[in-house]
Amino acid sequence: MATPPRVYLEADLSEGARVDLSEDQSHYLTQVLRKKADDPVRLFNGRSGEYGASIVEVKKRHTTLLCGAQLRPQSASPDIHLLFAPLKRQRTDMIVEKATELGAAHIQPVFTARTNSDHVRTDRLRAIAVEAAEQTERLDVPVIEEPEPLQSRLFRWPESRRIIFADESGDDDSRAWGGDPGRAPPVAAALQPFTSQDVKWAILIGPEGGFTPEERMHLRGLLHVTPISLGPRILRAETAALAALTIWQSILGDWRT
Amino acid sequence: MATPPRVYLEADLSEGARVDLSEDQSHYLTQVLRKKADDPVRLFNGRSGEYGASIVEVKKRHTTLLCGAQLRPQSASPDIHLLFAPLKRQRTDMIVEKATELGAAHIQPVFTARTNSDHVRTDRLRAIAVEAAEQTERLDVPVIEEPEPLQSRLFRWPESRRIIFADESGDDDSRAWGGDPGRAPPVAAALQPFTSQDVKWAILIGPEGGFTPEERMHLRGLLHVTPISLGPRILRAETAALAALTIWQSILGDWRT
Repeated sequence: MATPPRVYLEADLSEGARVDLSEDQSHYLTQVLRKKADDPVRLFNGRSGEYGASIVEVKKRHTTLLCGAQLRPQSASPDIHLLFAPLKRQRTDMIVEKATELGAAHIQPVFTARTNSDHVRTDRLRAIAVEAAEQTERLDVPVIEEPEPLQSRLFRWPESRRIIFADESGDDDSRAWGGDPGRAPPVAAALQPFTSQDVKWAILIGPEGGFTPEERMHLRGLLHVTPISLGPRILRAETAALAALTIWQSILGDWRT
Repeated sequence: MATPPRVYLEADLSEGARVDLSEDQSHYLTQVLRKKADDPVRLFNGRSGEYGASIVEVKKRHTTLLCGAQLRPQSASPDIHLLFAPLKRQRTDMIVEKATELGAAHIQPVFTARTNSDHVRTDRLRAIAVEAAEQTERLDVPVIEEPEPLQSRLFRWPESRRIIFADESGDDDSRAWGGDPGRAPPVAAALQPFTSQDVKWAILIGPEGGFTPEERMHLRGLLHVTPISLGPRILRAETAALAALTIWQSILGDWRT
């Protein structure tokens, strides 16, 4: 309950180092959390593990901390990427917050044919990821990549990274289009064969309206794509993202031990 | 994309029946979705499957529909209950919306020692569950139970229903309390032994501050409780609820086929 607050910063950390907080972080720590000189804090920068620290000076616009001992060494996060079609702001924010809690390493918005949102504020998403990482006790912050059209992202895709493609759309429109590829297998069954293989992964989630038949056919035609289904109910896009990440962590990620 | 909107109502449904929508539903259908006479709609009541219908009359405050053929017969939802400690409003709403998408049959707020919210508007949560059920193509709506203290809920618990207890709190305070029960096993490993058994289940999620050491010891002492862990990161309560439901559906529920 009363564990010291965690702060992410970019500065180097080592025992005895003095570090300054940004104005925003300083405001949060001293005005919102009402911390003052001598109060303990924990620091991490994504490279050096977690350090204990204490507040040595509080001024109007900045706070200085003194690093104490390292509390935890840096450890690698699971190498799982998330590609998602941006949604309305609140739901996009939810994806980034929850994907950070669920341990995504990279998060990238991708524009698909039916994506309604064409503007993504990655600075805002980065701030959300930092805050979620601080709360969730992660030692790193996921990389928020700049948005990109799905097509160009797939064109420059490294084939050594497999894509879990949440094939949520009903099959109706593909059938009408003349090429119904059938229902994708349940996610657990689709991932099970890979438990003993050293494969890198990404999860791809479409927009509310689903992928177009053309997009689905294209994805299904790629050898490094694993189509999955997430049960008989239609999930909203953000729910599909969290469910797929959860099951990936449980079967292939760091929830196994 | 252009599938007719779904409306949940309590009226009996049968081919040729005429049904009236409530004022709210009528407003939503005719003002928000801008549907008019002859437009197709789908109806479900949680008992009779799903029916096609068309709008026959639109008046200022009500809309009358004519039931056509049954489109899907009623099918049972997985028998999974969710007990959660109420959070701030937005996060409680998220739990109910997402648990509905993820197929929870019963949802009940329970007050634990560290629950900060003591007021839950179940009418509001019911409306959220109905809207989520309509969107997610479910044929039923989860039952939203009135809130109750965890202790009294456990006292009258039917032992034939096992409880998955997301033991998210760090073990530090239990150790201080003198009785560290050790880390709970990963959720997938904990549930796997039950795949061939016919057991009823509930998922129990604590508040942001976790369960108290006393609550944890009490729960761990019950034979019908299965403690689980949800990975090495600390999840927010609503994330833990969705993750536990997801993995339950994948291992024991209707995501298996």
